[in-house]
Amino acid sequence: MKYVAGVDLGGTNTKIGILDDEGHIIESKSIKTDSIKGMKDTFTRIWNTIEEICDKNNVKVEGIGMGIPGPVVDQRRVSFFANFPWEHNTDCGKLMEEISGVPTKLDNDVNVIALGEAKYGAGKGYESSVTIALGTGIGGGIYVDGKLISGFTGAGGEIGHMKVVRDGKLCGCGQKGCFEAYASATAIIREATSRLLVNKTNALYEMVGGDLTKVEAKHVFDAAKTGDKFALDIVDYEAEYLAMGIGNILNVINPKAIILGGGVALAGDILLDALRAKLPKYAMNAALEGVEILQAELGNEGGIKGASALVL
Amino acid sequence: MKYVAGVDLGGTNTKIGILDDEGHIIESKSIKTDSIKGMKDTFTRIWNTIEEICDKNNVKVEGIGMGIPGPVVDQRRVSFFANFPWEHNTDCGKLMEEISGVPTKLDNDVNVIALGEAKYGAGKGYESSVTIALGTGIGGGIYVDGKLISGFTGAGGEIGHMKVVRDGKLCGCGQKGCFEAYASATAIIREATSRLLVNKTNALYEMVGGDLTKVEAKHVFDAAKTGDKFALDIVDYEAEYLAMGIGNILNVINPKAIILGGGVALAGDILLDALRAKLPKYAMNAALEGVEILQAELGNEGGIKGASALVL
Repeated sequence: MKYVAGVDLGGTNTKIGILDDEGHIIESKSIKTDSIKGMKDTFTRIWNTIEEICDKNNVKVEGIGMGIPGPVVDQRRVSFFANFPWEHNTDCGKLMEEISGVPTKLDNDVNVIALGEAKYGAGKGYESSVTIALGTGIGGGIYVDGKLISGFTGAGGEIGHMKVVRDGKLCGCGQKGCFEAYASATAIIREATSRLLVNKTNALYEMVGGDLTKVEAKHVFDAAKTGDKFALDIVDYEAEYLAMGIGNILNVINPKAIILGGGVALAGDILLDALRAKLPKYAMNAALEGVEILQAELGNEGGIKGASALVL
Repeated sequence: MKYVAGVDLGGTNTKIGILDDEGHIIESKSIKTDSIKGMKDTFTRIWNTIEEICDKNNVKVEGIGMGIPGPVVDQRRVSFFANFPWEHNTDCGKLMEEISGVPTKLDNDVNVIALGEAKYGAGKGYESSVTIALGTGIGGGIYVDGKLISGFTGAGGEIGHMKVVRDGKLCGCGQKGCFEAYASATAIIREATSRLLVNKTNALYEMVGGDLTKVEAKHVFDAAKTGDKFALDIVDYEAEYLAMGIGNILNVINPKAIILGGGVALAGDILLDALRAKLPKYAMNAALEGVEILQAELGNEGGIKGASALVL
């Protein structure tokens, strides 16, 4: 049996696991990222934690895989870290290899989750899948024939910034009309808030006690599940744009599976059934044939499981 | 030196070439496809022509690559032939191998052109490129790390049917709002014709002698090049949607190069300059960084060159 480390580097906490070559977690641990202390300090503490878990379990790791919040080129070089005060364009693979003496590969955090779902989660056994994280924003990871499409500058799979409406709604990225501005959790909150400003006789309004700053995507789905017409209309709006964005991905990539993760995917059938019903309007017949629309399975473990698969 | 055959199977004619392993054409020949005589008859005549060219040049082929007008699965099985009365879901690789005794691979014709441009044309030396054929319709082929993204059911790269407008213009495919309905040669003709119905004092109207059935995309670009405001506005419309569609591809795939082929690409700088200027509105900075927007180089030879590369 071969063992590797999987690291999920987050803004606040970093999750570190030792896994076998079938994706089973031997043991995992979370440490503070403390990025303010510098990249080398964080990487050294990550390696110390790996060694600690290895010693305890009497195993050795043959590789380190890391998921990074930022674009990664050639699975080594990080163009920039979202929210970290760390140097841009750094060969982080080299740094970790110098610290640990162990071969290291990195990729973008959402790509790594997609790799995890493809190898060990909802996409297991399928030759291709696209994993879409529907949360505050929308991220994506494309897996084809055993590999991630990470992109020439590490921007592969940035499907949240496909434009679905020309000159459309302002997105957090500064551009307009992004998929993310129409189908993320934030998009649902924006649309619901906008509608609540002109309609207060609905279950959603009651659910948040009339406080529009309290609206969450979950409230919309919960109200819809009680049969509230107002909330159901918002779910329909969400499903429509989700179908448009996913339809585009199906036409371009033609994967075997679409795997939906993140908070919005937890809405379950009320959203997925509407999505499946709307897809034939956007995806070509050939690209829809035999495709599976699935919920992600790995949850919080997706990051370290996918990271470990980078070095297998 | 190794030799292979490249076959570009077309609706009317089939182009057959013998090429070396660097993509140089030793000799090529065109035969009638005559699909009405059946698949086996056409394939046998293709093989006879390959043998004839081989004998004449005293070489032997070690593989046969074929570009096919239809979706191809696993580079062997053709789901259906557009416009041919041939059986669906046929293992055409096996059939050609039985006839010829030579290993055979197939892929969709636009994918094959993309492979040709990536290996021997505008994308030579780049690790990834997306080739977009802008003609009557819009086809695409995605090349990443030495391989085509042909898709689970052979529909990979069908970027002409990405939706750019929800419930938008009717497309030839029967769906609405497709990229092809806004940015193909046909789209330019539709937009020009629609505008000419309400404006006849422009150079384009004069160029077609007032006969709206005569409008071609080339007329629009020619009139624009004379400075005609009416035609320039249509070019701007074309460039806007082209930028939206290509921006989406850049965000999703993040290739090193976009290669534009087909009749519309022949418009040259008047279109490409406008496209380059508009891309930053649609593509993320990271996905635009260092990207090349190029014209295809192989022309009519793209099909056989790309097909030959399937078996190298």
